[in-house]
Amino acid sequence: MRLRNKPGAKETILQHPNYILTDGSDWKGKWQERFLKAQPLHIEVGSGKGQFIVEMAKAHPEINYIGIEMQTNAIISILEKQLEEQLPNLQLLLVDGADLTDYFSDGEVDQVYLNFSDPWPKTRHEKRRLTYKTFLRTYETIAKPKAELHFKTDNQKLFEYSLASVTWYGMTLKKVWLDLHASDFEGNIMTEYEEKFSSKGQPIYRLEAIFNGKEAE
Amino acid sequence: MRLRNKPGAKETILQHPNYILTDGSDWKGKWQERFLKAQPLHIEVGSGKGQFIVEMAKAHPEINYIGIEMQTNAIISILEKQLEEQLPNLQLLLVDGADLTDYFSDGEVDQVYLNFSDPWPKTRHEKRRLTYKTFLRTYETIAKPKAELHFKTDNQKLFEYSLASVTWYGMTLKKVWLDLHASDFEGNIMTEYEEKFSSKGQPIYRLEAIFNGKEAE
Repeated sequence: MRLRNKPGAKETILQHPNYILTDGSDWKGKWQERFLKAQPLHIEVGSGKGQFIVEMAKAHPEINYIGIEMQTNAIISILEKQLEEQLPNLQLLLVDGADLTDYFSDGEVDQVYLNFSDPWPKTRHEKRRLTYKTFLRTYETIAKPKAELHFKTDNQKLFEYSLASVTWYGMTLKKVWLDLHASDFEGNIMTEYEEKFSSKGQPIYRLEAIFNGKEAE
Repeated sequence: MRLRNKPGAKETILQHPNYILTDGSDWKGKWQERFLKAQPLHIEVGSGKGQFIVEMAKAHPEINYIGIEMQTNAIISILEKQLEEQLPNLQLLLVDGADLTDYFSDGEVDQVYLNFSDPWPKTRHEKRRLTYKTFLRTYETIAKPKAELHFKTDNQKLFEYSLASVTWYGMTLKKVWLDLHASDFEGNIMTEYEEKFSSKGQPIYRLEAIFNGKEAE
């Protein structure tokens, strides 16, 4: 996702350290202290402009959420929403998803969300896909045993790749949706992208997979 | 698949024991003796009227095929094709797929195909789906270690179910196709059903999964 440069974004971010961090390493292992109460911690890797994570935090006050996004011009939109909402169960982190073990201790996270991640269609860019094995290893390291990965996308090739990738890694597919919006799935919260593209008749794919604490390879 | 009753089908079948058996238990562990030469053995469970298995046998003389079908009125059509073609690498077996361990010894089979299997959409019929765990166990028992299951269907719910079922069983998804006919998959041989329905714009789903010789549960 490429976004227009927002003037003053960096300054705004630095002014709100209670909601957003540009280096979370000080809070590694202590994220629960940044929330009103200690409760299950779900993270989204690649939150974009944040509609999903903000609406999830509103819909599920019993869960603490961290939206992780490496693009300043995207995460500023989440911060703007949060400055309006002031949700006590939402934190933002402006870092690269590849470095999550720097910011979370082992087993600190209860669930991981990926939504409409960049498909990186070229084979030589496979390692950049957020469902590539090195990313799965990172998520598994910071997640509790048997934690779940919830992933949705409209990109057929990325979904085909991800179904195979998670099972090669040793994960179990708990459930799969090949047309989420035509299914009986309840409580779906759409991303900005999902709202825009789902009306075009392209199915939305979704999977829930379980980390088994072992690698197949 | 319900088919019209074909008069004389049973008699025709009994007249051709060189091509079709109604009880394969005598050949358990000795299937290679029924072919011109010993070479990899691939079976299709639920061959219907047999276009797939006949065309595969023609296209791959280096592989021995067994088409397994429990309906007399379906398998008679395969036999009729085979009486014309007289393929030395194709055998037919008129039995219930649930009983395959009665007809094949452990590790006798190199690959298993399922094509457009009955979706059995009702939850109470889950056990009848050919990708239910008891069927997977049967296939794994008669298949070599690391053998592959190749499955295609146009039924979205059955495919969603099967993706999860094979991974719960402990299999790895080698590759997944969410729109086979729009992909670069080469050498696809269509079933009668696939030919009829693929023109309606419904995607054909396909998976290749590997038996890992362990169960997740």
